[in-house]
Amino acid sequence: MDLWYTEKHSENVGISLKITGTLFSGKSEFQQLDILETLEYGRMMLLDGLVMVTERDEFIYHDMIVHPALFTHPQPKKVLVIGGGDGGSIREIVKHPTVTEATLCEIDGLVIEKSIELLPSMAAAIDGSNPRVKLHVDDGLAYIREHQDEYDVILVDSTDPIGPAVGLFEEDFYRLVFGALKEDGIMVAQSESPFYHAEIQRDMYRNLRAVYPIVEMYQAFIPTYPSGYWSFAFASKKYHPVSDFNRERAAKRDFYTKYYNEDLHLGAFMLPTFAKENISA
Amino acid sequence: MDLWYTEKHSENVGISLKITGTLFSGKSEFQQLDILETLEYGRMMLLDGLVMVTERDEFIYHDMIVHPALFTHPQPKKVLVIGGGDGGSIREIVKHPTVTEATLCEIDGLVIEKSIELLPSMAAAIDGSNPRVKLHVDDGLAYIREHQDEYDVILVDSTDPIGPAVGLFEEDFYRLVFGALKEDGIMVAQSESPFYHAEIQRDMYRNLRAVYPIVEMYQAFIPTYPSGYWSFAFASKKYHPVSDFNRERAAKRDFYTKYYNEDLHLGAFMLPTFAKENISA
Repeated sequence: MDLWYTEKHSENVGISLKITGTLFSGKSEFQQLDILETLEYGRMMLLDGLVMVTERDEFIYHDMIVHPALFTHPQPKKVLVIGGGDGGSIREIVKHPTVTEATLCEIDGLVIEKSIELLPSMAAAIDGSNPRVKLHVDDGLAYIREHQDEYDVILVDSTDPIGPAVGLFEEDFYRLVFGALKEDGIMVAQSESPFYHAEIQRDMYRNLRAVYPIVEMYQAFIPTYPSGYWSFAFASKKYHPVSDFNRERAAKRDFYTKYYNEDLHLGAFMLPTFAKENISA
Repeated sequence: MDLWYTEKHSENVGISLKITGTLFSGKSEFQQLDILETLEYGRMMLLDGLVMVTERDEFIYHDMIVHPALFTHPQPKKVLVIGGGDGGSIREIVKHPTVTEATLCEIDGLVIEKSIELLPSMAAAIDGSNPRVKLHVDDGLAYIREHQDEYDVILVDSTDPIGPAVGLFEEDFYRLVFGALKEDGIMVAQSESPFYHAEIQRDMYRNLRAVYPIVEMYQAFIPTYPSGYWSFAFASKKYHPVSDFNRERAAKRDFYTKYYNEDLHLGAFMLPTFAKENISA
């Protein structure tokens, strides 16, 4: 029997992956969680029926949500991830020797639990073995309200702006994050596909620009995400991701990055015309 | 009734597009040609069951196979396209005012005929109305053997290296193209997906480096191609696509490019680590 999982990226287009089985399927207080075994992409986690990560291409997403900010900030020490219960972002953050505390604030404890159990290559840094890592099973908004003026970098590693993450795309939230950052802090958030989600992007970047003096979009290709073309918002109080980027420091990193590198850092901010135009103020 | 077209990108993954009908389906001497109407991507041309172009995302492929070479060469006058029977590459080439002659050499006359009839937004420059455009229905290898030392730029706008295009990925062919270029000529060829086609790429870039002093890979995202992440080979006798690129000239172009721009030109050559490593000599 051939089993195929199909995710529709719109009413009229989708991606299909052949699967060999379901490792977990269950409902938390917040959402439906499924972990499937695929032949092409290894294990794959779905939330409410949408692909969050796969073992084969997660290196791209996690390199790109973490390293551009952590190599732009000259001395990132305290870093917070909101969402990201699979642990992949934390795994990349703790590769930076400057980081003294990497905190994960994930609303759904089931995502953390099942990632530790079934996605160990991603969750290795959140299994309790790393003393620099702190876990909080909590609502991101509640958490940052209690932690103002504290972080060098905050990463919003969220789902799409439907379901539990809807509040994470609004101006009030961006103001709260602004407050939780130190005076030279940086926020990065996944910002959907420029190809399929033009309207969400326009709202999101308008909301960000109302709060942060520096807002830039950057891109990565992620084969299992809609259109394969994905983006991130870089919102910053002081450091610009291109003009303040220390290429030498990034080039001298003492860990391997399969996607990110010091040239790609710069190229990621060089956007296609249609993508730039869509979010131009 | 819901009709879906599914292209398998490997045994275990594929893209599905909802279609409303088939505009043409027929077999030429060389291959199966189908033109379908999709809801998400407009009209779509398939050769031997693989997506070649769609109306919605063809602007990316055609901007990127044409403009990097034509804005690197300081004075491109005679340009040859091998393959590319849909006409999209020729449409972009004739936007460059320096070009005096744009020649299409396509092996399959049926592709040209049906593109003119059913894909007019791509084929507008090959319908006989443009005096700078020459059409040859001929085998690319035979044609360039007869046209040595003649072209400023040659674009290999081919299908995958199976079927009629297999010879277009071999060292002998790259030598023939080298001979057909003037002493400062540039060749660009589509070079598959770094994510799915690592082995084809390794062979192809090895073959190119055996012939050309300058060989660089550059990238674009193309949602309807396997993985969404696509690449092109820039092979050149004299001009380097980054260090010899005249950013000012590209910025002053007097036509609109929905994907290409002078910054993206540079960013396109800044590759992910895994893609660089795969083709490193």
